[in-house]
Amino acid sequence: MPTSTFVQILDFIGTFAFAISGIRMASARRFDWFGAYVVGFATAIGGGTIRDLLLDVTPMWLTNPMYLLCTGVALLWVILFGRKLVRLDITFFIFDTIGLALFTVVGMGKSLALGYPFWVAIIMGTLTGAAGGVLRDVFINEIPLIFRKEIYATACVLGGFLYWLCDLCGMEPYLCQIVCGVGVFITRILAVRYRVGLPILPNRDTPPEK
Amino acid sequence: MPTSTFVQILDFIGTFAFAISGIRMASARRFDWFGAYVVGFATAIGGGTIRDLLLDVTPMWLTNPMYLLCTGVALLWVILFGRKLVRLDITFFIFDTIGLALFTVVGMGKSLALGYPFWVAIIMGTLTGAAGGVLRDVFINEIPLIFRKEIYATACVLGGFLYWLCDLCGMEPYLCQIVCGVGVFITRILAVRYRVGLPILPNRDTPPEK
Amino acid sequence: MPTSTFVQILDFIGTFAFAISGIRMASARRFDWFGAYVVGFATAIGGGTIRDLLLDVTPMWLTNPMYLLCTGVALLWVILFGRKLVRLDITFFIFDTIGLALFTVVGMGKSLALGYPFWVAIIMGTLTGAAGGVLRDVFINEIPLIFRKEIYATACVLGGFLYWLCDLCGMEPYLCQIVCGVGVFITRILAVRYRVGLPILPNRDTPPEK
Repeated sequence: MPTSTFVQILDFIGTFAFAISGIRMASARRFDWFGAYVVGFATAIGGGTIRDLLLDVTPMWLTNPMYLLCTGVALLWVILFGRKLVRLDITFFIFDTIGLALFTVVGMGKSLALGYPFWVAIIMGTLTGAAGGVLRDVFINEIPLIFRKEIYATACVLGGFLYWLCDLCGMEPYLCQIVCGVGVFITRILAVRYRVGLPILPNRDTPPEK
Repeated sequence: MPTSTFVQILDFIGTFAFAISGIRMASARRFDWFGAYVVGFATAIGGGTIRDLLLDVTPMWLTNPMYLLCTGVALLWVILFGRKLVRLDITFFIFDTIGLALFTVVGMGKSLALGYPFWVAIIMGTLTGAAGGVLRDVFINEIPLIFRKEIYATACVLGGFLYWLCDLCGMEPYLCQIVCGVGVFITRILAVRYRVGLPILPNRDTPPEK
Repeated sequence: MPTSTFVQILDFIGTFAFAISGIRMASARRFDWFGAYVVGFATAIGGGTIRDLLLDVTPMWLTNPMYLLCTGVALLWVILFGRKLVRLDITFFIFDTIGLALFTVVGMGKSLALGYPFWVAIIMGTLTGAAGGVLRDVFINEIPLIFRKEIYATACVLGGFLYWLCDLCGMEPYLCQIVCGVGVFITRILAVRYRVGLPILPNRDTPPEK
């Protein structure tokens, strides 16, 4: 079916962009090929895996070798064209944002199909989109970027609420999904374009010891 | 039922105290609101989530939005009253210890109800009480406090053995739970009051490379 | 049965070696006894636990207290003989490599028995062998060693392919497992002996921000 193929192509693009992001971060820290592959793979499938563990279903990459192969292609790409990747930063930013939007939609759809309420689905959509990047940052021993940077995971939350709103208005599921995905995509693009971020918390005390 | 309501109130207090602990640590590292919320949430539900994944049951926060809302209240609290929180440090230490004790009891009760033996239940009680703090410290990129500080998780282990002992003596489950919780609470309070800690390991070799 | 007992002894040796590795790393960072125990335990059972969570089966250490006790013996060992451990580095390197080889074989066997294809089994074998060390390094707040060091996890992957090859040739399962384990063992020994490593990725760009 054309729709399904279209989603598969977007899923491949998102996985590829996420894997590239992980592999480049790893290469900046002088990881070897294996380490870079693992970090790229974890970035690409980390969010979906945590979602699937929480929902108690088989992680998607155990039933489809696409994610494994796609990360392999991404590694090959960085090895061969590493020098030219900088010039493509805007392209990869677009790919990454497509991945973020699509992963959010996929994560929400999967949760709703399993009978979970919308508030759970929004968490799962956000996890699918953003948790891979957190895993990547734990592996390279950095404070996760998304905890301090401009709107990233928040775009997923926003898209999730749009999905919910559309559903409340009685719209068809596929329309809700398009609105959600486009919402995530545009929010992220606008946030980066206009450097919009969330407020920083006031820090009036020294770090408490728990 | 009054007992159940009482436990729910304690659960809310514990969740609130754990979330506050995470949010304050995050704010000390200049996380934005979203990052602080995630770290607070992970601190509050991390232990129970790891326990539920290991026991293969649905994580508790997917069936009850209380944890999500409670973290939201905690975030609001820090945003509004951040300046005054320092004065309440003793209050929060008490709340945190209540959380530790209650989470241990809840974790043990859940494991025993699923038919696991006591030695598994003690691990699960300790995980429920202490693993959230480990997750928080991984997110803020610090060595987990509980691996180096005064008696914390060890109080959970001790409370767990008290539970077991009471059960061996033929005491009623609810009595065992009270003894366990009070045991964790008092152990932790005394350890901090008298600065009791576990011995440090001898370090006579350079870090081995594995 | 003799075979089963033999595997159990090897499993104990592997668990012991992995736990020692974690406990020594923890002691080099001045963790207390509890922290060292947890890091040792996580190193020993981390890989198998992640595998079992992904395969949706009960983690092996919840059905057998051997792993818990074995880590306790390892902790006692380091407390008592910490001073003399350095002299045994070659012994522990051999033990560690036995653990790596055996854990790979066990992880693959478990996955194949559950009906997963070979490519999944190879990932699970590698996770079983190498993920515990990654967890250890996350706990002690270091970049995971295996992402930058000489052939380690790659030996598991290689052994996994040997297993597959033997199976394709129609060899008996137990023979495939021996070839796999010996393959992992020899690859690792040779890689360390001749300082063979994987290539480092080219780093021609500054770390990208995702």
